[in-house]
Amino acid sequence: MARSESVRFGIIGCAKIARKFCRAIYLAPNATLVALSSRSISKAREFKSVNNLPDTVAIYGDYESVLNDSCVDAVYIPLPTSLHLKWSVAAAEKKKHVLLEKPVALSVDEFDVILEACAANGVQFMDCTMWMHHPRTEKMKEIISDPSRFGDVKMVHSTFTFLVDSHFLQDNIRVKSNLDSLGCLGDVGWYSIRSILWAYNYRSPKTVIANPNPIFNESGVPLSCGACITWEDGNQGTFHCSFLAHFTMTLGITGTRGTIHLNDFALPFEEASSFFSLATDCGFPDLPTHWKSLPSKHVVNTDLPQEARLIAEFSKLVTNIEDNGGKPEKEWPDITRKTQLVLDAVLASIRNDCTPIHITGWDKY
Amino acid sequence: MARSESVRFGIIGCAKIARKFCRAIYLAPNATLVALSSRSISKAREFKSVNNLPDTVAIYGDYESVLNDSCVDAVYIPLPTSLHLKWSVAAAEKKKHVLLEKPVALSVDEFDVILEACAANGVQFMDCTMWMHHPRTEKMKEIISDPSRFGDVKMVHSTFTFLVDSHFLQDNIRVKSNLDSLGCLGDVGWYSIRSILWAYNYRSPKTVIANPNPIFNESGVPLSCGACITWEDGNQGTFHCSFLAHFTMTLGITGTRGTIHLNDFALPFEEASSFFSLATDCGFPDLPTHWKSLPSKHVVNTDLPQEARLIAEFSKLVTNIEDNGGKPEKEWPDITRKTQLVLDAVLASIRNDCTPIHITGWDKY
Repeated sequence: MARSESVRFGIIGCAKIARKFCRAIYLAPNATLVALSSRSISKAREFKSVNNLPDTVAIYGDYESVLNDSCVDAVYIPLPTSLHLKWSVAAAEKKKHVLLEKPVALSVDEFDVILEACAANGVQFMDCTMWMHHPRTEKMKEIISDPSRFGDVKMVHSTFTFLVDSHFLQDNIRVKSNLDSLGCLGDVGWYSIRSILWAYNYRSPKTVIANPNPIFNESGVPLSCGACITWEDGNQGTFHCSFLAHFTMTLGITGTRGTIHLNDFALPFEEASSFFSLATDCGFPDLPTHWKSLPSKHVVNTDLPQEARLIAEFSKLVTNIEDNGGKPEKEWPDITRKTQLVLDAVLASIRNDCTPIHITGWDKY
Repeated sequence: MARSESVRFGIIGCAKIARKFCRAIYLAPNATLVALSSRSISKAREFKSVNNLPDTVAIYGDYESVLNDSCVDAVYIPLPTSLHLKWSVAAAEKKKHVLLEKPVALSVDEFDVILEACAANGVQFMDCTMWMHHPRTEKMKEIISDPSRFGDVKMVHSTFTFLVDSHFLQDNIRVKSNLDSLGCLGDVGWYSIRSILWAYNYRSPKTVIANPNPIFNESGVPLSCGACITWEDGNQGTFHCSFLAHFTMTLGITGTRGTIHLNDFALPFEEASSFFSLATDCGFPDLPTHWKSLPSKHVVNTDLPQEARLIAEFSKLVTNIEDNGGKPEKEWPDITRKTQLVLDAVLASIRNDCTPIHITGWDKY
């Protein structure tokens, strides 16, 4: 397969988020956009024009054509979740590397079919959890993994909510049972679940129990819900996600010796510079009228936005396969699968009267 | 009853926290310390000396004597929880107004006996949840009660933890089943439960369910636990409290139109000046690469520390009774009772395999 130095991307579906990915592909040093498709050629043309894409980008009025384009090395798939299985498998079978929006599938069983197709065809899989690729995330990981600074992680809480309007509640893909039946859980709960698993280094949880009284629309799509994830040793992670509350994006991690807080974990307030709060060795003085030491603000700058870093990381892995005969990297798809597995368990608990669901099949891959 | 212009306090029990209350009584403009007691006169003498208390403060080697001292208008009771019932009732029967440390009782049934004694004897009751009296709390309440700024509160999360050492785990009153059997739930969970009820304006919750896998010591005293409190309309509050994790004191309140965050809700980082973060009308711009507006920092200064404001508020209520023939104020004891009721429900859920507990008896008083 002849390739330029950059990984050549095709986009399958002109979703709103695809705009951001066009820019990310442009910004990443090792990626180029070469094709895009929509169900209608006119929509694809409009997307190309609105986003000022160069003439070198081929446009197609169907998804299949991107997969048949021999200039395309990898596809970015921002389609509704119910279409992920079909188009990810089709892409893998055409030897296209797969960059798939979250939630990656309607269930882990579906996702396993995608993973098998990728493995069988030797292509790289990665999901689009952008914040994982921010250098701030790396910096926080360094701190929470250092027993002398942070001790052991004991508790994680994350809230991710945003308020939708009546138009969204009626028409948006993300509340349609035939398109994105996971609703707020798949759309924003995904990030919170990932943050909890990330903080616990993807160790196997024991049980998941949904919070009582989740809210659904009339088609049974979750609009507001939450859960508690528990580990064998009593460590816990809790989260709340919703389409019915103000835009909130909190992550709090409490270890035995330190605490991290940030209120913009999935998308930093500002693109080039972000921060988190770290408290260590805090407590009261003898006369407890104030804190004996204060949390400190840790600033982390980035030369590339997190989504461009995601593209660059994915492209690096693709290049290793295409140019160096390397094998697909397995950790990224593994943590994707673990996120989906916990998401499934939350949904199972919701469907079973919010009773505890025991986690099984953690290390299948 | 002859009284000076200040309310005259007696302290029953020289607990560590009593030091802070001596200072608070000194700082409050309408309160004076006139007596203190310990089980041994030498401990009381030592407390008086260490805290440089004036000679006008009478010291006693038993609690009863404070209650028999006609110069004492009100008592502050920082005894272990298992002694609250006996000494609060005894104080009320001697017509002493009662300022009681939290958790106020081992159960709401016990607390109801205290409330009945206070009512029967016409004395004021207040618990020592200090942060309720900080002007920051008032400012936040003003904001979350304003539908045009904050909308409706939908979700509250609070974490309150601190890390104890092996000495504490063996010997501290707060892990002894015969003294403070509510453990971390009574000691720090109390504040989180209160914060949730406060944010929801003390509306009646529907159910309480404890998080799975709470941690106890060998006597069954909770060392780490949490719960989800749910309202009829799907609104929720979650909290986590523990003696086994780094000092953390978080409160996050999400409304439909705004979000408040603070990481020092129960005791501000600094005494004179504190702050909280308020985000309103947040979200992404069309190209979602950053936040379209940022949270703002709201600074609230206070001339008196929160515990001195508590003493001043309590003393004002006492003066209204003693000098103006007023009736005891009922809202403070009412929110105390509601906090204890929810705390009881968390414990009941823990004792019942973390199954949901339906809240009843909300508006008994």
